[in-house]
Amino acid sequence: MSGNSFGKLFTVTTFGESHGLALGCIVDGCPPGLPLTEDDIQLDLDRRKPGQSRYTTQRREADQVKILSGVFEGKTTGTPIGLLIENTDQRSKDYSNIKDQFRPAHADYSYMHKYGVRDYRGGGRSSARETAMRVAAGAIAKKYLKATYGVEIRGYLSQLGPIAIESVDWAEIANNPFFCPDASKVPEMEAYMKALGKEGNSVGAKITVVASGVAPGLGEPVFDRLDADIAHALMSINAVKGVEIGAGFASVAQKGTEHRDEILPEGFASNNAGGVLGGISTGQDIIAHMALKPTSSLRIPGRSVDVYGAPVEVVTTGRHDPCVGIRATPIAEAMLALVVMDHALRQRGQNGGVEHNIPHIPAQRD
Amino acid sequence: MSGNSFGKLFTVTTFGESHGLALGCIVDGCPPGLPLTEDDIQLDLDRRKPGQSRYTTQRREADQVKILSGVFEGKTTGTPIGLLIENTDQRSKDYSNIKDQFRPAHADYSYMHKYGVRDYRGGGRSSARETAMRVAAGAIAKKYLKATYGVEIRGYLSQLGPIAIESVDWAEIANNPFFCPDASKVPEMEAYMKALGKEGNSVGAKITVVASGVAPGLGEPVFDRLDADIAHALMSINAVKGVEIGAGFASVAQKGTEHRDEILPEGFASNNAGGVLGGISTGQDIIAHMALKPTSSLRIPGRSVDVYGAPVEVVTTGRHDPCVGIRATPIAEAMLALVVMDHALRQRGQNGGVEHNIPHIPAQRD
Amino acid sequence: MSGNSFGKLFTVTTFGESHGLALGCIVDGCPPGLPLTEDDIQLDLDRRKPGQSRYTTQRREADQVKILSGVFEGKTTGTPIGLLIENTDQRSKDYSNIKDQFRPAHADYSYMHKYGVRDYRGGGRSSARETAMRVAAGAIAKKYLKATYGVEIRGYLSQLGPIAIESVDWAEIANNPFFCPDASKVPEMEAYMKALGKEGNSVGAKITVVASGVAPGLGEPVFDRLDADIAHALMSINAVKGVEIGAGFASVAQKGTEHRDEILPEGFASNNAGGVLGGISTGQDIIAHMALKPTSSLRIPGRSVDVYGAPVEVVTTGRHDPCVGIRATPIAEAMLALVVMDHALRQRGQNGGVEHNIPHIPAQRD
Amino acid sequence: MSGNSFGKLFTVTTFGESHGLALGCIVDGCPPGLPLTEDDIQLDLDRRKPGQSRYTTQRREADQVKILSGVFEGKTTGTPIGLLIENTDQRSKDYSNIKDQFRPAHADYSYMHKYGVRDYRGGGRSSARETAMRVAAGAIAKKYLKATYGVEIRGYLSQLGPIAIESVDWAEIANNPFFCPDASKVPEMEAYMKALGKEGNSVGAKITVVASGVAPGLGEPVFDRLDADIAHALMSINAVKGVEIGAGFASVAQKGTEHRDEILPEGFASNNAGGVLGGISTGQDIIAHMALKPTSSLRIPGRSVDVYGAPVEVVTTGRHDPCVGIRATPIAEAMLALVVMDHALRQRGQNGGVEHNIPHIPAQRD
Repeated sequence: MSGNSFGKLFTVTTFGESHGLALGCIVDGCPPGLPLTEDDIQLDLDRRKPGQSRYTTQRREADQVKILSGVFEGKTTGTPIGLLIENTDQRSKDYSNIKDQFRPAHADYSYMHKYGVRDYRGGGRSSARETAMRVAAGAIAKKYLKATYGVEIRGYLSQLGPIAIESVDWAEIANNPFFCPDASKVPEMEAYMKALGKEGNSVGAKITVVASGVAPGLGEPVFDRLDADIAHALMSINAVKGVEIGAGFASVAQKGTEHRDEILPEGFASNNAGGVLGGISTGQDIIAHMALKPTSSLRIPGRSVDVYGAPVEVVTTGRHDPCVGIRATPIAEAMLALVVMDHALRQRGQNGGVEHNIPHIPAQRD
Repeated sequence: MSGNSFGKLFTVTTFGESHGLALGCIVDGCPPGLPLTEDDIQLDLDRRKPGQSRYTTQRREADQVKILSGVFEGKTTGTPIGLLIENTDQRSKDYSNIKDQFRPAHADYSYMHKYGVRDYRGGGRSSARETAMRVAAGAIAKKYLKATYGVEIRGYLSQLGPIAIESVDWAEIANNPFFCPDASKVPEMEAYMKALGKEGNSVGAKITVVASGVAPGLGEPVFDRLDADIAHALMSINAVKGVEIGAGFASVAQKGTEHRDEILPEGFASNNAGGVLGGISTGQDIIAHMALKPTSSLRIPGRSVDVYGAPVEVVTTGRHDPCVGIRATPIAEAMLALVVMDHALRQRGQNGGVEHNIPHIPAQRD
Repeated sequence: MSGNSFGKLFTVTTFGESHGLALGCIVDGCPPGLPLTEDDIQLDLDRRKPGQSRYTTQRREADQVKILSGVFEGKTTGTPIGLLIENTDQRSKDYSNIKDQFRPAHADYSYMHKYGVRDYRGGGRSSARETAMRVAAGAIAKKYLKATYGVEIRGYLSQLGPIAIESVDWAEIANNPFFCPDASKVPEMEAYMKALGKEGNSVGAKITVVASGVAPGLGEPVFDRLDADIAHALMSINAVKGVEIGAGFASVAQKGTEHRDEILPEGFASNNAGGVLGGISTGQDIIAHMALKPTSSLRIPGRSVDVYGAPVEVVTTGRHDPCVGIRATPIAEAMLALVVMDHALRQRGQNGGVEHNIPHIPAQRD
Repeated sequence: MSGNSFGKLFTVTTFGESHGLALGCIVDGCPPGLPLTEDDIQLDLDRRKPGQSRYTTQRREADQVKILSGVFEGKTTGTPIGLLIENTDQRSKDYSNIKDQFRPAHADYSYMHKYGVRDYRGGGRSSARETAMRVAAGAIAKKYLKATYGVEIRGYLSQLGPIAIESVDWAEIANNPFFCPDASKVPEMEAYMKALGKEGNSVGAKITVVASGVAPGLGEPVFDRLDADIAHALMSINAVKGVEIGAGFASVAQKGTEHRDEILPEGFASNNAGGVLGGISTGQDIIAHMALKPTSSLRIPGRSVDVYGAPVEVVTTGRHDPCVGIRATPIAEAMLALVVMDHALRQRGQNGGVEHNIPHIPAQRD
């Protein structure tokens, strides 16, 4: 179906099932001369890796990435970068119980209608495990953007179920297993997750990602808008059901005088636009939010049917994230990085790096 | 650049500035044999057309579409369909006042950084007028989907500023100028818009679109997910700041037991998924919501800078929609139609129309 | 379907049938700031225009191009350029005689199998007339390449039926109706064409195109090679049956010592490569040849079948080029220009215009 | 640079350098349900494998392919197929001699200008070794086309240096190391190659590929013509300098009455078109020829410059094919298979497999 590629000039194509031999991807379009090692990539992979805390699945995957091509004497050559992660934790488990069932809110039913067949082991291609290669590819984009343009791409958990953060301290994010930037909320989250675990239930979450230092002028005006591509990128992550740019859905009830970001010589007065106007970056922080649904794999029985149409009661045993959002921050960062990287190259192609003589308005200060 | 095309097999490419000679598009990939007349397209264009009520801009555009190619003896031939709309209402207005200004929340500033030049007459390419050709192309997709698959694509205004609808009566939508499906809310909306007009301010809105009768199995699992492409499509519409599929951001606070749509032989028990699981259609209604920001063209002065960086006070006179959302429903329908159409052709390409022997679960009933 | 676009960053999408209302195209991806008028484009259109001499079809088309968008105050804006040519010479002719016939060597039979329908008036979409928009788009690429990189793209007729040229005098090309660079061959060609006309037959031709001044480093190493894209571009022209780069088919009998272009500090010793090595430009002249088949529209009866499978004798009356090659030079130039333009932008996107510190070897001197 | 993908619906993306850790590719878009094993692919890989005879390079590569994803319980699942070949024969050779040299007729010079860096070990990405993954991907396309449509794709060596074949006996091809279909020419070829080896020189070759059983109607009329895509595909193979469809360059001297393939109810009278009219398949055999230049790696010294611009004498030692054409037949078959496969899926997407009620004219009989 040829839908496993992302990006136009910086193109990432992935393959791999959760219980297959390996996951892999090809990063095509990385400019030559970027110093790149497996450690650069491993860093982000480890942030996404399961089994890091008691709040995520205990499935243990080394997620050790190998660079198979495109790097020579420590630098990218401009040729495609092949990345590979071998699957190590493939329990020879018995899947006969779910083999013929359509698990509610899983891709089982839609996959069977599309393909007439599915790799039922751990969800196959629809497994969240597929996102590992996105994170790997994103790490390359992040490094290039940082090195070449000073762009910084970061994210955090902005809401866990009913618990919304109230402040953002970037330094705090790495200090807790939730990617939570508000230390005061962490105990609450811990307590919530423990109760949830006992209950055998799952919950949704909200992730916020920010790209700082993006030059004004990236993005295309009509269909390939920067914000439209970000929406595409984030909505393509498993379990995501909503995407916002800047003020997002709050814009609905805003008045024009309230929403418009006034422009002062010393800087933008606000950032309701989320760094994008007319589909093109303004130089302000690019801010996006995404909503993740609760995990569908639950110990609590659910009603469904089997492949023959007969009613069944589905119980998902095994190791699952009670909140997929907890590990989703590095994935969101990666996807945002892929979009910004692609548009940076596209804009370079279009204007050959010409700097127009236009005032640069500083981004709004918090 | 090169970002003015949408779709992979059913590809729409548009051109045209609001104050140029004409708007046009090429619809490439429409299967042969579809009966098609200019009236089929005009119908939707007229629904989007300005000047239909006192609540939209009084700019009067005939928006009369011409089919230039791809139709022979009343039927599509499979060759590209060229569509053209000549601009008629080009007042020879004096733009010198805004020529050198960056209007807050407009694309002026980002365009100038991208291109170093802009057609300042009425926003040029960034004008909402660009969406006329999307509606024209979408009308062709809608007709094909209806004729070939019985798919119905409809939409409505689900919120106007602070006023949210409480019920959906499809028959009501055409009876008011707001595309509002809840008759009881119309007087409130009218009063609100009048007050807004006096105030010289603008407001945001929320639009909901639904595709009914879409077969299960459309969409690609990873990057080209049906929901990701819908997010791309809707976020690419002027002024859109957020997109939701099904439960959307409400999923964040939902528990798994609450969100999962249980599957019963007689039908799905709910539709929090919005008709998409794992990026692939389930056969349930595909439901998407989008948030539109308030119009940025206001009579109320705003602070900004000019192209030399000097502070200026910006006042936008002329004819503008106080709420772009009011005319956005046909645009959202069109974009949803383009996505479903493209994936219908892609799926056909992939499986050659094979019907897999899988139970078809009826969509959830309201 | 969806096959009417060419180019990745500089994308040209065309529409239009020979006997429809108009031909048009959208040039998407032209960088902003290029001075562009309709005359710039008309110049090349007139070179391709029919009815210029007694040796081409007497069908008279004004081929007057209109720029509908993308140009503001005399310069490109970076937004899509819409071009339109209205069809003027649509004789209300009776086509009933060919309506149900498959003309040998025409696209009638293959079109009917593909679409189940065809616009039989003058070949519809398969008419050579479709190439007018390629020439129009190519003229824009040519102007940009010349202005920005000093690239010159020129072509000539290198063989007319059995008559091969023996020398190339660029100044001569415009002095005869054949685009023939060898004045000594023109009388022979004239005599040949007259005899051919009497006979009611047609003949093939060979065109050579050259791009001079192309910087080394354009093209991608594997699938999107510069030479592969040139082959794609030229083979996509009506009636073309073969494409060569540099030595082309002569390479088959060459030995390595004979073929390899030795590199001397003062310049390449030869140019068998045709300016491309490993799919990437070397800075030498890019040289391509293409073979055009004889026109299939003949007064001499041919055997065929009708749409019901019954044998028929086909005679094509009306106005046709006895040798399509005579007007093909501007088309070949245009397609070469589109390829070089696209790769120039891609390379710019990839390396941001970095100049590597590598010796520049001068092109081989004739 | 994002140029390592081929195909629109059946998309192949490759990576890997000749002396890197591995070569790999992702085949995206293979329909589900195709029985597929590593042996199916290995078969063609072995036909291309070096060291099969004394007439090809003695470099020994196992070229053992591994399927990493996309196949479950012996059948394709519709998800991307990841293929991997580990490089085994990486002699820790000393490359210092060529490290700083530009070998004549190699990609060294153009690569350095493009990237500013190159993997000089055995040509890196520009090595013919890259074609192994094309053959692997092509084997999947071939199997699908055979199983689903009865399409057969075969090829042969039609000329070796000065030695052209005079007859085609398909059964003969596998009986000699040249893929030569004319047994009477084999001794001549053997003698020629021995002399060539002594001389330390290389020579060019011509390959012919044929697709039989392709339904009429595949291909798009304008830019994505079947023949244009074939030209792109074949010209993208290392060392190819020319491509012909059907009569190819012979068309130049043909008259219309000679070239046109008359259509009789009992079958086409000839096949100068090579199975393609107006860019669309006719149901006749699709016939393409390609010219390969002589290998550029010679023991006979050649003049060149080093990366500092100083003149050097280049001698290429090591193991090289004196005629790359000898192993090129499986590569050409693979590329033709990829094109036909892609267009088969595209056409299916466009017309949903509708069979139009048109007479099917049998292909011309030899």
